[in-house]
Amino acid sequence: MLAFIARLSAARSLNKTMVRYKILIEYDGTNFVGWQRQNNGLGIQQAIEEAIRQFSGETVTLFGAGRTDSGVHALGQVAHFDLERDTDADTVINALNFHLKPRAVSILEASPVDNSFDARLSAKQRAYLYRITNRRAPLSLDRGHSWWVPIGLDAERMHEAAKGLIGKHDFTTFRATHCQANSPLKTLDELTVTRSGEVIEIIARARSFLHNQVRNFVGTLKLVGEGKWTPGDVKTALEKKDRAAAGPTAPPDGLYLVEVVY
Amino acid sequence: MLAFIARLSAARSLNKTMVRYKILIEYDGTNFVGWQRQNNGLGIQQAIEEAIRQFSGETVTLFGAGRTDSGVHALGQVAHFDLERDTDADTVINALNFHLKPRAVSILEASPVDNSFDARLSAKQRAYLYRITNRRAPLSLDRGHSWWVPIGLDAERMHEAAKGLIGKHDFTTFRATHCQANSPLKTLDELTVTRSGEVIEIIARARSFLHNQVRNFVGTLKLVGEGKWTPGDVKTALEKKDRAAAGPTAPPDGLYLVEVVY
Repeated sequence: MLAFIARLSAARSLNKTMVRYKILIEYDGTNFVGWQRQNNGLGIQQAIEEAIRQFSGETVTLFGAGRTDSGVHALGQVAHFDLERDTDADTVINALNFHLKPRAVSILEASPVDNSFDARLSAKQRAYLYRITNRRAPLSLDRGHSWWVPIGLDAERMHEAAKGLIGKHDFTTFRATHCQANSPLKTLDELTVTRSGEVIEIIARARSFLHNQVRNFVGTLKLVGEGKWTPGDVKTALEKKDRAAAGPTAPPDGLYLVEVVY
Repeated sequence: MLAFIARLSAARSLNKTMVRYKILIEYDGTNFVGWQRQNNGLGIQQAIEEAIRQFSGETVTLFGAGRTDSGVHALGQVAHFDLERDTDADTVINALNFHLKPRAVSILEASPVDNSFDARLSAKQRAYLYRITNRRAPLSLDRGHSWWVPIGLDAERMHEAAKGLIGKHDFTTFRATHCQANSPLKTLDELTVTRSGEVIEIIARARSFLHNQVRNFVGTLKLVGEGKWTPGDVKTALEKKDRAAAGPTAPPDGLYLVEVVY
């Protein structure tokens, strides 16, 4: 009983003036060095941390669900941060968007959450979209927002090859050599390829991904789409557990973090 | 008979070394002063004329179907030009796209056409799309490609009001004061407003439009969408034949020339 009261009191004194906010973020990654702070330019994390400081006066660390690379976009990135000042969610949205105005970063939603919520660790699933524009003419309106592939791709064959990657595997073949994950073992829940006119969309879902995993999937599936590889070749590459066995890494332009499920 | 032969021979000597090309063009209008050459920056017309000169060595004038303003985009602008050198259409597409690479302008199609074809005068109908993103959060990925309207809009009511503008009318109310058209009398074939999620799309079709006509329609329909005007007010404004009677001009960001019908 005494232990319980002590725990409660400790929690109260910690939480008394701290409120955790969960925010839903959209961004155009083109002019950023990626989600994380870097020395060579502005990270999205840093841009939002600065906006938080500008409106609240508090210097916080923002924790994101996915560390997207430079040039990668988000329709639904999720992050959390703690504020000493108790502010209503509407003010958080409006103030952040006001201070982020010069940047291509938008706060779509904000809500106070329990202090046990962690944008990265609590995530049950992440969904990425990869867009390919498969046409002869280069891109104008979609520059930086899609991968331009002028050679004709067979999306159905790409989809067939994608099915062979679903499930729990050692994904070393599709992992960036500098990936810092503890294990290359991941469970891929979904990998679908569909075409609508000149646009091919690839959706990938998993609890978590290795570094460059989706872009390495796409670079390899493109080889199948253009007829250089068979779906069987993709399966063989996976089994080799060797990055050199797969196709090249697709450019960041077409990649979007679309959803984080909790 | 002699007259016929003379005509034929004249036509032959004229056409001997001149081939007219029709091109289909996509562009992001953000960083251009508009379709036409201007003194204050680069026009899309000029960018393509320079690309034609770079690949062919010939200085030509490019005639476009629609003179889009600065910041207005195109998914299907059409233009024509004449070349002395007979070049196959594939070479025209590839060479123009190569020289246009630094610009957000893409040549989607090219074909040799009869010398009587005129991109502007032969057009039977033009279609424009106007995109509104109707949500609270500012735009990031669609910056410059849609009109951000944070106040809630009733798209069905906008559509109802739009119906009152269809048909043959004196559109002085929706005409830019500096419009150079001979007559304000135009026949509007279609004006539809639909919503899909947070995006409202307005499609306008007519043989031709007055300067700023679509953007003035949209600026006025927005007043209906937010409940400031009734559909009847739009009809009344039309009948006043007075630019001051309508709503403001919507920004260029959301406007796309999507199709020219011949």
